[in-house]
Amino acid sequence: MDSVTLALDVMGGDNGPRIAVPAIKRALHVYRDLNLLIFGEEKIVLPLLRDFGLASNEQIKFIASEDYKGFNNPISVLRHGKNTSLFKAIESVGNGKAQGAISAGSTGALVLVANHLIGTLPNVHRSALVQIMPSFNSKGTVLLDLGANLRYTKEMLYQYGVMGSVLAKCVLGYNSPKLGLLNIGTEDSKGPVLLKECADLFKANKNLNYIGFIEGNDIFTGNADVIVTDAFTGNVALKTAEGLYRVLESRLNSKSYFSFLFKPIKGFIKKRIGLMQPDAYNGSILLGLDGVIIKSHGSANSNAYFSAISQGYNEENCRRFNSNLRLIVINVQ
Amino acid sequence: MDSVTLALDVMGGDNGPRIAVPAIKRALHVYRDLNLLIFGEEKIVLPLLRDFGLASNEQIKFIASEDYKGFNNPISVLRHGKNTSLFKAIESVGNGKAQGAISAGSTGALVLVANHLIGTLPNVHRSALVQIMPSFNSKGTVLLDLGANLRYTKEMLYQYGVMGSVLAKCVLGYNSPKLGLLNIGTEDSKGPVLLKECADLFKANKNLNYIGFIEGNDIFTGNADVIVTDAFTGNVALKTAEGLYRVLESRLNSKSYFSFLFKPIKGFIKKRIGLMQPDAYNGSILLGLDGVIIKSHGSANSNAYFSAISQGYNEENCRRFNSNLRLIVINVQ
Repeated sequence: MDSVTLALDVMGGDNGPRIAVPAIKRALHVYRDLNLLIFGEEKIVLPLLRDFGLASNEQIKFIASEDYKGFNNPISVLRHGKNTSLFKAIESVGNGKAQGAISAGSTGALVLVANHLIGTLPNVHRSALVQIMPSFNSKGTVLLDLGANLRYTKEMLYQYGVMGSVLAKCVLGYNSPKLGLLNIGTEDSKGPVLLKECADLFKANKNLNYIGFIEGNDIFTGNADVIVTDAFTGNVALKTAEGLYRVLESRLNSKSYFSFLFKPIKGFIKKRIGLMQPDAYNGSILLGLDGVIIKSHGSANSNAYFSAISQGYNEENCRRFNSNLRLIVINVQ
Repeated sequence: MDSVTLALDVMGGDNGPRIAVPAIKRALHVYRDLNLLIFGEEKIVLPLLRDFGLASNEQIKFIASEDYKGFNNPISVLRHGKNTSLFKAIESVGNGKAQGAISAGSTGALVLVANHLIGTLPNVHRSALVQIMPSFNSKGTVLLDLGANLRYTKEMLYQYGVMGSVLAKCVLGYNSPKLGLLNIGTEDSKGPVLLKECADLFKANKNLNYIGFIEGNDIFTGNADVIVTDAFTGNVALKTAEGLYRVLESRLNSKSYFSFLFKPIKGFIKKRIGLMQPDAYNGSILLGLDGVIIKSHGSANSNAYFSAISQGYNEENCRRFNSNLRLIVINVQ
């Protein structure tokens, strides 16, 4: 079995290399056939690699790059940021030096640069940001688009459904993934006209297992295996769920009279609801590109960044050894 | 102090009068100055009122009405449903027989009939569906629009912000409620143009305490006291949060080896996170109308329907005895 090479832009996000480097150490320990190209500012990243005993690790290669904090919009990163860690990490996928790239940088810049340097698969209009959401009753739920394309058409939503279904088959192992379209009611008459027209496109494709409109409360039930929505709605839904989880978690963790009594079973509760822990499912795939690009959450901590690397590793393994995402090319018409 | 009279359409929602009647019994017990006009199908509702010992209760008056299950869209309820419980409950607000109405019927029909029979306050373009969300760090957060107007303009979102701020002052007692606009990033450059234009309108009104764009994870933190969004996004965010809460709750309640150990502290956990219990905050206000209209969740249980009645009771009390929602008229220009 060949090893997997991933390119990491470690400068992005709120915490940059401080959380990325510990995650790298853990990933190298867990995935013995993983090689990493690490892109970041030399004077910040090299000392950190040394501190974590990674300076002369054979699985990693450090490539000095510029930070992109100074660029105030995605287009300027594309035009003038060729030496940034984000650009160079994606470029290494474009030129075949890595099989996938991971970045916690701006979604806008990531999408723009990836489309430019890697391009979408044939017939795919736009890549979409996808997350595999945890579910207690199923193997997981594919949710897209989470922020790649603010402007969208019914054809784009339709393609998200096809691509999401392929991902659910290939990565999650569903035979015939149940596809739902996120709306504000389940009846056919509900919601905007564009969604009704998209539903007609889904119904007409007999290769899809389209189950109809679903509502926000179905994201976590496993009633649908693939959920299609637009970037704005998807992003808000994801962050709302994360926010509620964090508030409940901090509430359960907060000090109180009962803390002593509470402590022994905290582990048990964590196990019970920990599957919903946002850190555990950090890492959105930019689906529809001719290469693996993973977006890590801007506020990711070290555990979350590790999840993003795992996502990239597994996705790349799936892509090479399983059914290959090029299946999309056949399905998207 | 005058008594409060509320009109209840008990036919709507998934569970109709079966959950409404027990909630009525509880409400009459808690609010001694509350009178209820009850609208519903005679052959279903009267036996239930008898079963719960309410048939000759002096605080209630039953008015036989038709169900509206047969109407397949909101317009047909408006045109041909004059004898339905939904129409008649709202009508009793329009003609002054009740100060507020509560229904778990279709949001579309409720908005359409209420706009027709009651009308918006002067200068208000459209009413908006509002919910007061629980928050651990504040008195609550006003979230709107949750489903009244699928089509919207920047001016409508602006008016939602003004109306929501008045509600936060009047009902929740904030002096200068922090107003946020829901977006997919906090930077001024993020998101759709329409939101940027709406932000400019907020900034220009010095009576508002506009704090900028906020993200989905801020809905429950108390960082904003009023959160403005469009109907589609608001509805999805609300239902996503409800869905996650239900899944976590069922997970904590499910049987296991540790159930025995777990049971004694279950009450404690419920107290800790129970504030987020969707039943406790059921009841969305249709804000901007010249009367109090409350939408109860379609899947409401008896506790939730009781919360909706409480919402109506408190809102009506606030409206009559406190600063009066007509303040909106002055602020919305």
